[in-house]
Amino acid sequence: MTHTELSPARRISDNGISVDCVIFGFDGERLNVLLLRRTGEIGGISFDDMKLPGSPIYQDEDLDEAAHRVLKELTGLSNVYLSQFKAFGSKTRTENPRDVIWLEKESGIKVDRRMVTVAYIALLKIGRSISRELNGSRAIWVPLGTEGSLAFDHNQILTESISQIRRMVALSPDCIFDLLPRKFTISQLRKLYETILQEKIDAGNFYKKLSVMPYVVPLDEKETGTPHRAARLYRFDRVIYRKNHSE
Amino acid sequence: MTHTELSPARRISDNGISVDCVIFGFDGERLNVLLLRRTGEIGGISFDDMKLPGSPIYQDEDLDEAAHRVLKELTGLSNVYLSQFKAFGSKTRTENPRDVIWLEKESGIKVDRRMVTVAYIALLKIGRSISRELNGSRAIWVPLGTEGSLAFDHNQILTESISQIRRMVALSPDCIFDLLPRKFTISQLRKLYETILQEKIDAGNFYKKLSVMPYVVPLDEKETGTPHRAARLYRFDRVIYRKNHSE
Repeated sequence: MTHTELSPARRISDNGISVDCVIFGFDGERLNVLLLRRTGEIGGISFDDMKLPGSPIYQDEDLDEAAHRVLKELTGLSNVYLSQFKAFGSKTRTENPRDVIWLEKESGIKVDRRMVTVAYIALLKIGRSISRELNGSRAIWVPLGTEGSLAFDHNQILTESISQIRRMVALSPDCIFDLLPRKFTISQLRKLYETILQEKIDAGNFYKKLSVMPYVVPLDEKETGTPHRAARLYRFDRVIYRKNHSE
Repeated sequence: MTHTELSPARRISDNGISVDCVIFGFDGERLNVLLLRRTGEIGGISFDDMKLPGSPIYQDEDLDEAAHRVLKELTGLSNVYLSQFKAFGSKTRTENPRDVIWLEKESGIKVDRRMVTVAYIALLKIGRSISRELNGSRAIWVPLGTEGSLAFDHNQILTESISQIRRMVALSPDCIFDLLPRKFTISQLRKLYETILQEKIDAGNFYKKLSVMPYVVPLDEKETGTPHRAARLYRFDRVIYRKNHSE
């Protein structure tokens, strides 16, 4: 029982490797994902759909390096905390001729084999500084649920990344505040939980839930410039959070 | 800002893909990991160390399929719940000539490039049925901490898989009982927690902790055949657990 059991009748895989970045951003109302549009016509096939920012990796870079490079080159974003969450390696993932034709044209490489992709995830608040970084790139924020049919297996990667956020929030509840502006309303916090948990949360019940979140601290301020009655603003207190989560 | 930004001066990676399985087993006293011994001499280099069960994948199989095949072929184990936890793709991971020589001899493939490996994890109780399945294979249970210097980056994979168990237990406390025999003592449960959390737990404090684990149910039975005073046996009650973890 050694490696010599490898069957000579079956071909060993020499697949390519790529990385894909699933970047989530909350705009105060909705959870968005950062996508690139595929447009134009190649060999009689017309493209008008979207994909995650991703790319084959270079021989001389590590996976994490590749993920940061891809994000910077394709979206302009740097200094983003990316965490690896899963490798996707189905043998059918580069079987769609549309995707093969597109990838060969765009990357200049021959796609004669499966590309195994390693997916990364990041949570961002959509604010002025992020918008400035994205300025000039082809990347666009697309509200979750409106992305339509994406390239390759990117719909599956997106679906699994929502489950990944749910695990991240269950393990480290503070990571949800990476998505919120520095000052937020309880309604924004509740909508964000609803999107991530994919269930409706009753507003009254949610206020009760807040009692076990002493790190969500009310401010002496209200939101401004809203058409409805201005709601109180809150902030996340990391010191209180750490006291609660170090026991 | 498109894929055409790929630099023609840098080589696109066409690395191979492998899978590695980190199988943990608890024997009632210690947490063990399932390893294969590398012995013998190849080209003047002598081998006497260990590695995780792993193998390059075939072109015609998916990652999960490969992980189950590798485990069955190298250890005899089947019907094991394997979960993917991380891809390891450092460009230096197949740079040690020892590992390259060994892998080329054992697998019959030319290792002229990095192998990106996708690591899987499983938690098992070492009991009669597992021992029967392992019978006849070269796989051995090695107590954690005594594995020495492993092949490739397998020490790093092993270290990160302990953190992964910690995350799994934090998310789903029931998975710790996958490691324990059906009837266990509180001392066994405490030792297991100590190993996973990598910290000493005071026995008195641990009894207090049990009060928030109503699903650990005492039996009207004591352990037998021990040199010390026989301790009470407990069992895990999944029905009570589900009631507590569905709210």
